[in-house]
Amino acid sequence: MDFIIEEEKTIQTDLEKLLCTEEGQELTMEGAVHSVRDMGEIGFIILRKREGLIQTVWESGRTDTQSGRIREGDVIRVQGIVKKEERAPHGKELRLVKTWHLSHAAVPLALPIDKWKLNTSLEAKLDYRSLSLRNIRERAVFRIQEGIVRGFRDYLYDQGFTEIHTPKIGAKSAEGGANMFKLSYFHHPAVLQQSPQLYKQMMVGVFDRVFETGPVFRAEKHNTRRHLNEYTSLDFEMGYIESFLDICEMEAGFLRYTMQLLKEKYEKELSLLQVTLPDVSRIPCVRFDEAKNLVSEKYKRKIKNPFDLEPEEEELIGRYFKEECGADFVFVTHYPSKKRPFYAMDDPEDERYTLSFDLLYNGLEVTTGGQRIHDAEKLLEKMKKRGMTSEGLEQYVDAFRFGMPPHGGLGIGLERLTMQLLGRDNIRDACLFPRDMSRLEP
Amino acid sequence: MDFIIEEEKTIQTDLEKLLCTEEGQELTMEGAVHSVRDMGEIGFIILRKREGLIQTVWESGRTDTQSGRIREGDVIRVQGIVKKEERAPHGKELRLVKTWHLSHAAVPLALPIDKWKLNTSLEAKLDYRSLSLRNIRERAVFRIQEGIVRGFRDYLYDQGFTEIHTPKIGAKSAEGGANMFKLSYFHHPAVLQQSPQLYKQMMVGVFDRVFETGPVFRAEKHNTRRHLNEYTSLDFEMGYIESFLDICEMEAGFLRYTMQLLKEKYEKELSLLQVTLPDVSRIPCVRFDEAKNLVSEKYKRKIKNPFDLEPEEEELIGRYFKEECGADFVFVTHYPSKKRPFYAMDDPEDERYTLSFDLLYNGLEVTTGGQRIHDAEKLLEKMKKRGMTSEGLEQYVDAFRFGMPPHGGLGIGLERLTMQLLGRDNIRDACLFPRDMSRLEP
Repeated sequence: MDFIIEEEKTIQTDLEKLLCTEEGQELTMEGAVHSVRDMGEIGFIILRKREGLIQTVWESGRTDTQSGRIREGDVIRVQGIVKKEERAPHGKELRLVKTWHLSHAAVPLALPIDKWKLNTSLEAKLDYRSLSLRNIRERAVFRIQEGIVRGFRDYLYDQGFTEIHTPKIGAKSAEGGANMFKLSYFHHPAVLQQSPQLYKQMMVGVFDRVFETGPVFRAEKHNTRRHLNEYTSLDFEMGYIESFLDICEMEAGFLRYTMQLLKEKYEKELSLLQVTLPDVSRIPCVRFDEAKNLVSEKYKRKIKNPFDLEPEEEELIGRYFKEECGADFVFVTHYPSKKRPFYAMDDPEDERYTLSFDLLYNGLEVTTGGQRIHDAEKLLEKMKKRGMTSEGLEQYVDAFRFGMPPHGGLGIGLERLTMQLLGRDNIRDACLFPRDMSRLEP
Repeated sequence: MDFIIEEEKTIQTDLEKLLCTEEGQELTMEGAVHSVRDMGEIGFIILRKREGLIQTVWESGRTDTQSGRIREGDVIRVQGIVKKEERAPHGKELRLVKTWHLSHAAVPLALPIDKWKLNTSLEAKLDYRSLSLRNIRERAVFRIQEGIVRGFRDYLYDQGFTEIHTPKIGAKSAEGGANMFKLSYFHHPAVLQQSPQLYKQMMVGVFDRVFETGPVFRAEKHNTRRHLNEYTSLDFEMGYIESFLDICEMEAGFLRYTMQLLKEKYEKELSLLQVTLPDVSRIPCVRFDEAKNLVSEKYKRKIKNPFDLEPEEEELIGRYFKEECGADFVFVTHYPSKKRPFYAMDDPEDERYTLSFDLLYNGLEVTTGGQRIHDAEKLLEKMKKRGMTSEGLEQYVDAFRFGMPPHGGLGIGLERLTMQLLGRDNIRDACLFPRDMSRLEP
């Protein structure tokens, strides 16, 4: 009988091995051939590993392989002698003695992935996703994205939140309206969830504080640079709040924690992409109506609709607070009630507005949040006022009838936050496999 | 201008406050009324918080509230005097002076959630999900589930894996076949992904090691105690393996890490549910054909089909290794090629079998994994042999044509693992909001 048995393994990457091996010593490693520069008697073969690039050198007469046998895309095992070399990444290279092929690329690479900047159209990058991301700066985007999600979870675990997994197929969805994907579920009509909103609220009555990181689906007919039809939403919901500002503070805490985490654990990627992390120690807060006025005055822009915010206005609010306070982020609070879903709590001091907020990052909304109604009667009243019935929402309403603490929460668009942090122009650049109106593959 | 400013907050739960407050001192806290035991002159009001239950005592003439005003489901703020009381949870209680209502329950609670064991049908528990989970043992299930997912991620971060987020809507799905949910995506036919398989393989060529924790969708027409139509899959895929046993070892490492994490951080929940953690330091490995023979001999069971495993056989394999080696887990390896998807690598020594495995936990499959084909030509050959075309899989096949390291991976069913760890009979008990053929709500 064989067993898989506990054993202490030294986890050392090939790069770490290279760095701690003395000049003149032998070393074996594996990697994907990132680029080959054949100079005749000598050739530079750059290996790509998850930890970075490693320079190896083929020498005529010294390496057992024939020139031209090693091609870009191949995956090889190599044995060689470590040598100091200032011009190599990490100051060391491997002079090859023997090589073995683990696999062969069948065709030449369709994109010049070894270039510092992959000068390729967005379309080509997305069509050849499995290849374009082999460019080390392209893939660094998603390492940083990992850091954001990791920061979100780790911070919230520390704050006493419980992670939940809520269903994406349902009879009804949170926001309602037309932008739902519909499907047939064993002959029953069903939809894909636009957000975990109703579920996370129900779970506040159980765990007090919950979060989820998962996909959400919006059948919006927008093909813009900042919309995706499927994206990853970072959601939390917390009970026993005194005001929606508790939610803003929790978000600010997440941002501070995450910037620190990125600095500590993703330094290599930040430097590859030359990212300067934003200052999140002070985030200005401004009322929706006040923000519109400030922007209208400063940039001589007429207010068309006092209860709506146009994308250009969002951008100008971002610009205003950058210019006036040097802020990258701004909380815009008290959104009009008409623009918020039924579960948003209206401001008792002026019911045309809600106790809610958006967080703008360099002029783009990256978060929507606020306090929710927690009283069953008020909830039903507001639903009625909006012409909604509680059909299909019975169990959601039940949660409130059985008692709920005052609570609120938010949803952060992961790709938007990534895109703004990295200063990208198109959200598709910040999504591994984007889905938009015309893209369903790969 | 207002700002959200960095400030150090002491994060102390109400329970921690109670524990560190001296007898006779005053304390204010908030909570949901979990149960009320009215004894006339005195009443016990148990508050439920995320950290546990806290006993408060209403006294006629001393508490400002009238008897009967505080009801189960209400959410209240209370002020009182701390008193030692051996019979109370944590050895302390709060003698109430003042109470305020934060919210009122509108109706009596439909389930006796304050009972130690919620003796309610599964149907009722699921219909009243937002209520049944307020039972502290029911909710503990999902705290432990959190620990499993957290262990999975933390262990894999440490092992150099990158977390990815792959799309759930696609033109084509990994496993193919009939059990796909179909939808219309802006007038194009689309499906919900049965697994992130194709995406995580493509990403091995980029990050070497990747993982994802997310929903998968299977339109299987099984209404059994161990099937869900939507579940959370813990997936990883890793490059540069020598054999599929590297995958088994990585999984064993995850299990060891996670049991330790549960012991350290989820001790309260383990003890609430009286869970004994399994021994994962030695996990037996047995070949599929050998396992069938062993079980057939020991339990006098005729082998009907040498290339298939019936659920009863799975259970008996579990029983066999429990009886023979005291093992809760067993890796069953070398599954028949016919039973595995096209991307599975056949065993070069006997092509009727694959370099793959399932992990059984107390006789139930909780993981499927194995080595994958990494050579484009072999992949296309196997697809052809199965009568598949590469239509819709062009970009998946491209990843291999541009070169891929030898690799493999696995998918773990989170709810199944939770169910077995907690010794539950029905997988619906280990899912917050289960989806089965007849359940689409709440």
